[in-house]
Amino acid sequence: MSVFEEPNTALLPTGFIDLLQHEAEAEARGIELVMEVFAAHGYERVRPPLMEFETSLLHGAGQALAEQTFRLMDPDSRRMMALRPDMTTQIARIAATRLADSPRPLRLSYAGSCVLVGAPGREGERQITQAGIELIGVDSAEADAEVVLVAAEALERLGIAHVSFDLSYPALVQQVVDELGLVPSSRAQLMHALDRKDAAAVATLGGAAAPVLNAMLDAAGPADTALAALAGLTLSSAARVLADRLAAVATTIAARSPGIRLTVDPVEFRGWQYHTGVCVTVFARDQREELGRGGRYLAHESEPACGLTLRPEVLLRAARPIELRPRVYVPAGVDVARAAACRAQGYATVAGLAPVGDVRAEARRLGCRHLLLPDDLVTL
Amino acid sequence: MSVFEEPNTALLPTGFIDLLQHEAEAEARGIELVMEVFAAHGYERVRPPLMEFETSLLHGAGQALAEQTFRLMDPDSRRMMALRPDMTTQIARIAATRLADSPRPLRLSYAGSCVLVGAPGREGERQITQAGIELIGVDSAEADAEVVLVAAEALERLGIAHVSFDLSYPALVQQVVDELGLVPSSRAQLMHALDRKDAAAVATLGGAAAPVLNAMLDAAGPADTALAALAGLTLSSAARVLADRLAAVATTIAARSPGIRLTVDPVEFRGWQYHTGVCVTVFARDQREELGRGGRYLAHESEPACGLTLRPEVLLRAARPIELRPRVYVPAGVDVARAAACRAQGYATVAGLAPVGDVRAEARRLGCRHLLLPDDLVTL
Repeated sequence: MSVFEEPNTALLPTGFIDLLQHEAEAEARGIELVMEVFAAHGYERVRPPLMEFETSLLHGAGQALAEQTFRLMDPDSRRMMALRPDMTTQIARIAATRLADSPRPLRLSYAGSCVLVGAPGREGERQITQAGIELIGVDSAEADAEVVLVAAEALERLGIAHVSFDLSYPALVQQVVDELGLVPSSRAQLMHALDRKDAAAVATLGGAAAPVLNAMLDAAGPADTALAALAGLTLSSAARVLADRLAAVATTIAARSPGIRLTVDPVEFRGWQYHTGVCVTVFARDQREELGRGGRYLAHESEPACGLTLRPEVLLRAARPIELRPRVYVPAGVDVARAAACRAQGYATVAGLAPVGDVRAEARRLGCRHLLLPDDLVTL
Repeated sequence: MSVFEEPNTALLPTGFIDLLQHEAEAEARGIELVMEVFAAHGYERVRPPLMEFETSLLHGAGQALAEQTFRLMDPDSRRMMALRPDMTTQIARIAATRLADSPRPLRLSYAGSCVLVGAPGREGERQITQAGIELIGVDSAEADAEVVLVAAEALERLGIAHVSFDLSYPALVQQVVDELGLVPSSRAQLMHALDRKDAAAVATLGGAAAPVLNAMLDAAGPADTALAALAGLTLSSAARVLADRLAAVATTIAARSPGIRLTVDPVEFRGWQYHTGVCVTVFARDQREELGRGGRYLAHESEPACGLTLRPEVLLRAARPIELRPRVYVPAGVDVARAAACRAQGYATVAGLAPVGDVRAEARRLGCRHLLLPDDLVTL
């Protein structure tokens, strides 16, 4: 840095951004709308803190996110605190402790910011916003379906077109592989081949399960054809229970929301860190990033639960553009009651703080397409 | 801890809390309503990140908050980052950098969480929420008045009764004391006496300024009597400029909003960390904590600015109670279109995930006062 330069205070750490006027408003309204849909389905809002003791935040399901968690020392207690990388484990804590006596199923919603350590040198966002729901205390396909259906309604309200929900059940492929009894290195090779969706390698490494595993790979796609393919597979009774649950969830969702775009990938298992049941990833066409994800897990290591978290900052890139209040310039001295009337009609009033010579030019300079004159509201 | 005990995962660090259902919803709605009033007055929302580089966050006005700031290492850049203890300095950074070319005055609003290190052993909150406005690029009594008037309208919309705004100008009393030319230790003693509002000590320590300083102490109270008392004081021309500005701000506010409860304390100066002009503290009757505070400062060390920040978690204790959607239990199998119609009418529907024997008992168990039967919506 040259001695002539100020430190560049505009520079933010990688993965941390400012949302400016239009984007910040769009994100806030998106959260509001999504939370409103959640509330209409009986999900009650909770707001856990940004930081907790490490022992609490990384308890149970939270362990899976330990590597992604910033920690800092609490000077008061001299114990380590952690910044939340995710809110689901906090909701599970609240359900297990302060809301232990609330009737089940317990439906909770939340919206807030989370912070991730991030991958070294990677560009990805390190502060993410989450807005989600958790349905706690019941283990059924109906419950799994409900969180998807409620999220689908929220996305529809945001005007996001061509949303698709991709269902998977990470435990299913693991069960089929486990039944082969492979040594760990061979198992790892096979899982890697499945993750790459490399049919040739699966044929070589999959032994007796190779035909079933490759049929599962082939099955990935629209829910009806995928479920028909899954139904035709010869599976152990343990694996069949899992496949049937996946089918039951997809069938329940499709029955309730016939127009929904539902895909099933029976071999998808990567990236699910604490999930134990059917999982879902939400996509929009033309949108590289996931809009959200969710699935079934054990809340606080003990209680059945499922949930789905949307990513408002991704949603705002896919949602229909928001309308901001049209701006009207109110020159100094114009009756304040008339400005108030404009606000009540949906305008944003921009007050002139001192008299100016050319009120029309001043209105334009301040980005106002409207001007409140002593006896008229004019459009420029 | 006994070996028989689990770690107490319910325990949060001092000053960090969970807001549960009703409170979390009330806080969110309060923020929404306040931001809506800000938007109606032309304040455009921005959303800076929770963390920034220390050099950026604690730049300029931010230095005053350095002791209250949690820091952590960014493993990516190996530089120190800081968790924001306040959002005003972030807004000033945005105004000075990314929005440097936007027309002035620039009106920005923001809402978000901040984290403070806190005082050792003290009980106070360490995670606070802020919702505020900044009016950047103009130095006038009109501007100072605008932020107070907009905040007053926001509080009125929240139904908070008996709000009062206490105006002060920390530089005024400092100017009067500076003119005495005291040695630092005597000056510190006098400032301490003024802070304690100890008239006897001020009489002893105040030298030639003692009568004026005690008259300023006496002046504190409702704006009209305080301003009359201030107007009658014999002040240096430098101090008179400050007193007149304080009077101009109060007069402008009172003229625009005749019913507002305005007090003036010409000797209040403690707790203003980076403010350079007229300051305001917002109180509600029966509420120990401030609802908010603000004042004039130099944005990014160079641009005149003033702002006001409300504290949504304090507001929600003073605001009128919110109404939640009435809950209606929808037994399994009831037509989903009828449940959707209930939601459209403002109910929260709570879906039965499996058939139950006694739907009325189940509705009550789940906290629903209403029940959707196949042909009727009944109140229990």
